[in-house]
Amino acid sequence: MSPTTTTPTRAILASEPEPQAHIPGSNWTIENIIVPTTLKDGELLVEMVASGICHTDLLITSIPRHPSYPLHYPRVAGHEGAGYIKAIGPNSIKKDLAVGDPVLLSYYSCMDCVTCKLGRPNHCPNFGYNVIGQSDAFKSADGSDDIAGSFFGQSSFANLSVVKESSVVSAKNLIETPSELKLFAPLGCGLQTGAGSVLKIAKAGKGNSVMVSGLGGVGLAAIMAAKIAGCHEIIGVDINASRVGRCEEFGATKALNTKDSTNLAASLKEVANDGRGPDIFIDTTGVSAVQRAAYAALANGGTLVLVGASPDPVQKLEIDIRDIMTRCVKVVGCIMGDSNPGVFIPELVKYYREGRFPIDRMTTFYKAEDFKTALHDMHSGETIKAVLKW
Amino acid sequence: MSPTTTTPTRAILASEPEPQAHIPGSNWTIENIIVPTTLKDGELLVEMVASGICHTDLLITSIPRHPSYPLHYPRVAGHEGAGYIKAIGPNSIKKDLAVGDPVLLSYYSCMDCVTCKLGRPNHCPNFGYNVIGQSDAFKSADGSDDIAGSFFGQSSFANLSVVKESSVVSAKNLIETPSELKLFAPLGCGLQTGAGSVLKIAKAGKGNSVMVSGLGGVGLAAIMAAKIAGCHEIIGVDINASRVGRCEEFGATKALNTKDSTNLAASLKEVANDGRGPDIFIDTTGVSAVQRAAYAALANGGTLVLVGASPDPVQKLEIDIRDIMTRCVKVVGCIMGDSNPGVFIPELVKYYREGRFPIDRMTTFYKAEDFKTALHDMHSGETIKAVLKW
Repeated sequence: MSPTTTTPTRAILASEPEPQAHIPGSNWTIENIIVPTTLKDGELLVEMVASGICHTDLLITSIPRHPSYPLHYPRVAGHEGAGYIKAIGPNSIKKDLAVGDPVLLSYYSCMDCVTCKLGRPNHCPNFGYNVIGQSDAFKSADGSDDIAGSFFGQSSFANLSVVKESSVVSAKNLIETPSELKLFAPLGCGLQTGAGSVLKIAKAGKGNSVMVSGLGGVGLAAIMAAKIAGCHEIIGVDINASRVGRCEEFGATKALNTKDSTNLAASLKEVANDGRGPDIFIDTTGVSAVQRAAYAALANGGTLVLVGASPDPVQKLEIDIRDIMTRCVKVVGCIMGDSNPGVFIPELVKYYREGRFPIDRMTTFYKAEDFKTALHDMHSGETIKAVLKW
Repeated sequence: MSPTTTTPTRAILASEPEPQAHIPGSNWTIENIIVPTTLKDGELLVEMVASGICHTDLLITSIPRHPSYPLHYPRVAGHEGAGYIKAIGPNSIKKDLAVGDPVLLSYYSCMDCVTCKLGRPNHCPNFGYNVIGQSDAFKSADGSDDIAGSFFGQSSFANLSVVKESSVVSAKNLIETPSELKLFAPLGCGLQTGAGSVLKIAKAGKGNSVMVSGLGGVGLAAIMAAKIAGCHEIIGVDINASRVGRCEEFGATKALNTKDSTNLAASLKEVANDGRGPDIFIDTTGVSAVQRAAYAALANGGTLVLVGASPDPVQKLEIDIRDIMTRCVKVVGCIMGDSNPGVFIPELVKYYREGRFPIDRMTTFYKAEDFKTALHDMHSGETIKAVLKW
């Protein structure tokens, strides 16, 4: 395959969502499109074998164009890709990558700024590229219209995609079988985010009571990480009975269904730390009411890690200055678990091999064309982590 | 002196402030009042020799009665006391205290809850007592009216005061001369707060750029602590030229006067970390506009420590969820520097003896009756840390 041609591929396209009453994912269709395979500096062509579906894919494709958020439509999302390198563009920096290599995909960073060079790519000032991407990453089948992509430098909802080399982690020494490459696809976002929120951001330890709201892939990764950290109390919270029912098998010591709670903050506080509230609260729901209740429920000295956001592009959390001071609490934003994928993904694979990060027990595979079924099953709670296979 | 009598004393009284256009401290007068010296469990009678004036004294006595903040007036503030034990009440827990011992005073904690027993008294759920205190701690000179006190369990703006034993740190092995007891008085609040914000909360290290706004005693303690931590960049910020002019002698590597700044966030960001903004921002001003600018100026991955509050009892900071997540920043409330005074005050005294915490260079002593002069000099910037002598 020459890197100077265009190549047809299949991809899941998101059209611009209706501003009102949008159902996440209802604007997704599978289409034939074209990848302009003229690779630029630091780009690779990757043939995807799998991509996890993350709520961020649904969230971002649910946001209509907005002045503070210049999203292009139609676009190709997907940012938990796994595949094989088909071609490598000019002037690549990463010397451990070769055509044919299996790779796991994570997020874009510029690789050139001080923070990137300090090994903190998640603090790269150009991180915003991950969400905005590139307006002309793909073309429509007839070549006439631009389609946005390079979502997280990868747009793994296309079978074939041009990927930024910063998003690439070599899986050559990580996988033992080809099917593991598919299983490990979500490590690059959801799983490293959940695990990192506990291990890297909150730096949980044995004495801590950890509460996790939202028991999808991110939330369960947080729960598994809290168990790895030896936390004495790990509480899973959701409003979906089937998810609440499963969190204990991943390490939760308590499960709480808050569906019928009339005072959410009080419900959360009373079950943790003998009523003092959790020391660490990982919110993966992104629901404002849950964020506010989580903040209020924290034990003094506690940490709220915000891992989720709502589709509202100007979502806020209001903090009372006297309250945050008197209670000595922290509010921390988390993206990608504050982790460097090249370092953290191999660490998570090690935990998986030790049986401490049993992601196989939460993963359900679907053919890419069955993405609607995957979304339905994620929504019902029947599937925790959906991975599409190309 | 019998612990069952009442005893006259001199004290600085704060009357209820006018709701509008109140000048902090304008409601303070020095008066003769009565201490009911019938000590209860865990109380001590302490004869003060000195008390620092902290902005919290001014702040709290500037707040009119408010539904969310049940403050009593008139009241005796003061919470950086130093003195000698005159009597010890029944059932005291601290066994290292004897009548005649020199003591430094800090803050109240219940000593009985799980967090207190874990050595985290600043996370005690009863911390609110420090601000609210007790409505009948003193009586007017004729014995007819209640005067509120037990501010931070001490109300050190009275020459003689009933003190909660949790607020007491023995100074027997800390001071080498009686005058050091006066010099060390502010260790119990302002200085441990500033130093703790950097060393305990932000856990600053060599690689960090630290910015401190508000160069009073708390701010300079933060700057000295950043130097102790070896931070490579330490930036002092104020709008008072004389304070800005002095911060470098306490360890700042840069000084910034933002009096004429038209875009405060930009001014703060551009001078730190080659324009990336500070990794750690300690705001001691409590001014909402400064808090917002400090938050905006943070480098990605950075930490804003809120050490100050305005007199507005419902002061807020609004956080944009996408912004805090994308930038991976933290907002932390700080009271008392997240420190246990019994452990941290001796540590600060050690730094002082090593010449690394030169609090003598920022302290000016005044007679208690000259408190108006002290307030004037603090306001003008001529005095950094005022300590009243009884």
